[in-house]
Amino acid sequence: MNTAITRILGIEKPLFQGGMAWIADASLAAAVSNAGALGLISSILGGPEAVRAEIRKARTLTDKPFGVNIMLAAPDAPEVARVVVEEGVRIVTTGAGSPAPYMKMWADEGIKVIPVIASTAYALKMEELGATAVVAEGAESGGHVGELHTMALLPQILDAVKIPVIAAGGIFDGRGAASAFLMGAAGVQVGTRFLVARECRVHPVYKERLIKAGDIGTMVTGKSLGDAVRALKTPFTRAFAKMEANSSVSADEIRAFGTGSLRKAVFDGDLAGGSFLAGEVSGLIKEEESAADIVNDIIGGAQKLLAAAPNLL
Amino acid sequence: MNTAITRILGIEKPLFQGGMAWIADASLAAAVSNAGALGLISSILGGPEAVRAEIRKARTLTDKPFGVNIMLAAPDAPEVARVVVEEGVRIVTTGAGSPAPYMKMWADEGIKVIPVIASTAYALKMEELGATAVVAEGAESGGHVGELHTMALLPQILDAVKIPVIAAGGIFDGRGAASAFLMGAAGVQVGTRFLVARECRVHPVYKERLIKAGDIGTMVTGKSLGDAVRALKTPFTRAFAKMEANSSVSADEIRAFGTGSLRKAVFDGDLAGGSFLAGEVSGLIKEEESAADIVNDIIGGAQKLLAAAPNLL
Repeated sequence: MNTAITRILGIEKPLFQGGMAWIADASLAAAVSNAGALGLISSILGGPEAVRAEIRKARTLTDKPFGVNIMLAAPDAPEVARVVVEEGVRIVTTGAGSPAPYMKMWADEGIKVIPVIASTAYALKMEELGATAVVAEGAESGGHVGELHTMALLPQILDAVKIPVIAAGGIFDGRGAASAFLMGAAGVQVGTRFLVARECRVHPVYKERLIKAGDIGTMVTGKSLGDAVRALKTPFTRAFAKMEANSSVSADEIRAFGTGSLRKAVFDGDLAGGSFLAGEVSGLIKEEESAADIVNDIIGGAQKLLAAAPNLL
Repeated sequence: MNTAITRILGIEKPLFQGGMAWIADASLAAAVSNAGALGLISSILGGPEAVRAEIRKARTLTDKPFGVNIMLAAPDAPEVARVVVEEGVRIVTTGAGSPAPYMKMWADEGIKVIPVIASTAYALKMEELGATAVVAEGAESGGHVGELHTMALLPQILDAVKIPVIAAGGIFDGRGAASAFLMGAAGVQVGTRFLVARECRVHPVYKERLIKAGDIGTMVTGKSLGDAVRALKTPFTRAFAKMEANSSVSADEIRAFGTGSLRKAVFDGDLAGGSFLAGEVSGLIKEEESAADIVNDIIGGAQKLLAAAPNLL
């Protein structure tokens, strides 16, 4: 499937794998890239040198394009921003902040920059800064979320900017992907479903919980801290929400309770202390699959639906 | 456009107008039905006799099918449930509660019952009760909202039930409608956009605020009361949210603050005391239009996109 974004990035399939913190490593990214989609390595894997090591490892696992997702709010973002240049990475996606301080350095190297955004104002700002495209992420997604959801967000972003738009949030299979393409998206980004990829390193309890999750199995916490995050409903998220609802608990106490919680989920499968970030599509997850099977199901399914669309008339 | 729901209901276009409380009267419903879609009269218009009067008025304005949306949590729901039988209404949608107590009475009259649902468990329960179809409503919508959003909700409901599914929440134009049809929906329901229909009676300030609203112009309040509602961000909604965040304010005080707030928005355009219920698509609203223009833009736009879908491959 050929779109503006496959042509610009030199990939075969208009699908990005979300660059999930502590999760998206060389193993997952290379498996996705080998399947013809765009694998992404997270900047949050234990420091800039860990990111460098994963980039080098990915090169040994695939000769296809892959990228790095840089979480700009992290204190080591300036170092990671240089690591991607030093390592010759060609594609960067960014989240949780403005890439403005790095745009000239990256442009000088010909790096394609694709910020993840959640509002029209931010999309326009990124277009002005010279972004190659934007990922419009609806708050159905796991992890950090904005205010709008894909069905309402995507048309508003498409109307606002001229650069290609990749749709994210709530996309699980060919149905969501075909919808996004039909609305005008040049690609889709999928995170949650790749959590159960065989090549994904999250703890078996994390995968098991995703497979067991029902439709209303996730919730958003952290709004009171200005840091809204969607995760599976677990003893941890319920306790977190209770602290937020109690105005005698300080923001600092709540933040301290959350510190390190993603790692506790990813590496320890710790239900009491871990934050199992996951999107609203968790209820659709039925089994562990290879990354290639996930890519082919999403893009193959979308192609079938688009081909058959006139039969609906 | 011919779908399972147009055939069952005898309508020309697979589009429902949301049965908005204090808003959806004979004037709006008849205009929508005259355009070939399904107009709905709300059960919340000032008592069962007011509903009866609007049903009778709608009959003078259209000879096409229309329905009544019954808000089951209202104290007068049992009376309205009988009024629709007495007045020979053929189509009922229900919200905010279970229609179980009325299903036999309605089935005996051949009334088609289409509950609005927001989770798979509820959808399955409604199918078991004999519902004709369900409206799967994502929390992008204005007014009362559930936990899931359309892009993630719709596939999960479609996988769960065999009866036709009408998609609601975040649908504004042909793009959202085409997406819903492509995913497998038999129809779409639109609420927010009909607020600016020329035939819609809301106060001019309500329409003006919708036209001016940006993409992040709405918010959800009432979660702490177990009664989440999406509305435009106004001095009222901000004050309401502040009360909710303060655990020294009781639920009764917050409820008292909200009492009558929808009427203050609809009839008085009162920004300090009114709750301007509206969905995430508010940012897409640009002008007042006739109900027929809205219907034709949504269905015509969807048809064009579906016909052209194979060109995306």
